[in-house]
Amino acid sequence: MHMTYPASEYAIGILDSGVGGLTVAKEVMRQLPRETIYYFGDTKRCPYGPRSEKEVRQFTFEIVNFLLQFPLKAILIACNTATAAALNAVKERVGIPVLGVIEPGARAAIKASRQNRIGVIGTQGTIQSKAYEKALQRIHPDITVYSLACPAFVPLVESGYRHTRVAEEVVAETLKPFQAVQLDTLILGCTHYPLLYEPIAKVMGKEVAIISSAEETAVELSTILQHKNLLSGKEKTAHCFFTTGEADSFARIAEDWLGRPVRVETVELTPVEKLTG
Amino acid sequence: MHMTYPASEYAIGILDSGVGGLTVAKEVMRQLPRETIYYFGDTKRCPYGPRSEKEVRQFTFEIVNFLLQFPLKAILIACNTATAAALNAVKERVGIPVLGVIEPGARAAIKASRQNRIGVIGTQGTIQSKAYEKALQRIHPDITVYSLACPAFVPLVESGYRHTRVAEEVVAETLKPFQAVQLDTLILGCTHYPLLYEPIAKVMGKEVAIISSAEETAVELSTILQHKNLLSGKEKTAHCFFTTGEADSFARIAEDWLGRPVRVETVELTPVEKLTG
Repeated sequence: MHMTYPASEYAIGILDSGVGGLTVAKEVMRQLPRETIYYFGDTKRCPYGPRSEKEVRQFTFEIVNFLLQFPLKAILIACNTATAAALNAVKERVGIPVLGVIEPGARAAIKASRQNRIGVIGTQGTIQSKAYEKALQRIHPDITVYSLACPAFVPLVESGYRHTRVAEEVVAETLKPFQAVQLDTLILGCTHYPLLYEPIAKVMGKEVAIISSAEETAVELSTILQHKNLLSGKEKTAHCFFTTGEADSFARIAEDWLGRPVRVETVELTPVEKLTG
Repeated sequence: MHMTYPASEYAIGILDSGVGGLTVAKEVMRQLPRETIYYFGDTKRCPYGPRSEKEVRQFTFEIVNFLLQFPLKAILIACNTATAAALNAVKERVGIPVLGVIEPGARAAIKASRQNRIGVIGTQGTIQSKAYEKALQRIHPDITVYSLACPAFVPLVESGYRHTRVAEEVVAETLKPFQAVQLDTLILGCTHYPLLYEPIAKVMGKEVAIISSAEETAVELSTILQHKNLLSGKEKTAHCFFTTGEADSFARIAEDWLGRPVRVETVELTPVEKLTG
């Protein structure tokens, strides 16, 4: 491909197991309106949470390989499970900045927390990886972390049930274990969870600061782009969306959440063992 | 100097025109408790606000030169006036990451703002430089910025009057012009101003999000260190403080604000035209 425009005008590749990463894409659009996004949702193979680390890493490599056919200046792994399984491996193999969603969330929780009692909710894969505990304690040794896997949440969101009474009940029941511990901060350790923000905030109460990786990851992307002189100067942008699933149902959820029309294309991924980017 | 420990264990150099940058140092200590700080306050020549850009840049070079005698892994210009006047020049001349306080504050304001109506208060130097306007609109073209110089605030803080009735009255009077505009976010564009947080927040009301560069700059430092694999793994740290002014009065203000004993040394700076780091 022959490029005649500078790297600062390249796009941001954002990938997720499905529609959850749209919470991150939405924040990038809001906070960095000059940036162009190539979004990939692996809806057909969603959820990633119950899969093995090896499988999630392979899926992530396949998506990154697909996205690297476009001129990208950064890749954002907008899925906690994939971040835990593959961030470091992708970083090592790709020549552009690669961001995950775990470290920005950890940093924001450290900023918000005053008693250093931080809760984390996520998929089984994310919670089992202890990625948040490691990220938090790497930076701040005195933090106590309470982790809870919430396997029911992603299917609730992906199936479009988030506005229902069922969603409220499932959230309240799932978060019961937190009643016994005094948290001051809760990390939504899955990019799908901001879509359940209201019921989660209601159960946790006003005293608990709720951290959405989405907002913080967009700030971190802004930071990295600026420090590398890669901020776009564009006045208008046109985003692209790809899914391995059904384009119409992806578009419906995406338009509901982003509040704007989206172009979605269904694509097939090529299995790869290694990144070639 | 012969170093036998890795660069990740080097210190962070933080500089300010006086004690204002201690708000940033305090947040770095809280959010990054493994990091060691070498703090420099140019109290004798404070305030920088009314000085020319050229003079502020020269003073900043002198301080950076002094700090570079120590093994540093990053420099943080914890003064908005010095950031506006010298950040880019220092960045170009120094081989380690250099952070200012303007971009982190701008980014946090963009995250917090929902109506894109952002106010900025700062010294004459900072406001005249339009550094915040440029930083905000570089990232987000649709933001309206309302700027106000508050020359009385720094002397209030440096002279130790911040807990008094006088401080409240000066703040209320100074911020009157903002009554005519509907802000949704206010940036404290001077590192001294978090020391006047209460009276400022009282005047602005609960609807306005107040952004302290200090908190956000510590997050940005954490981001940059992590992406460069420079986070410290230390369990204990010992910070150092230098001032061009009187060590005892600097120590008194620093201990009041940091809530811990500090070692302060009075030093003389060597005039330089160019950075030699």
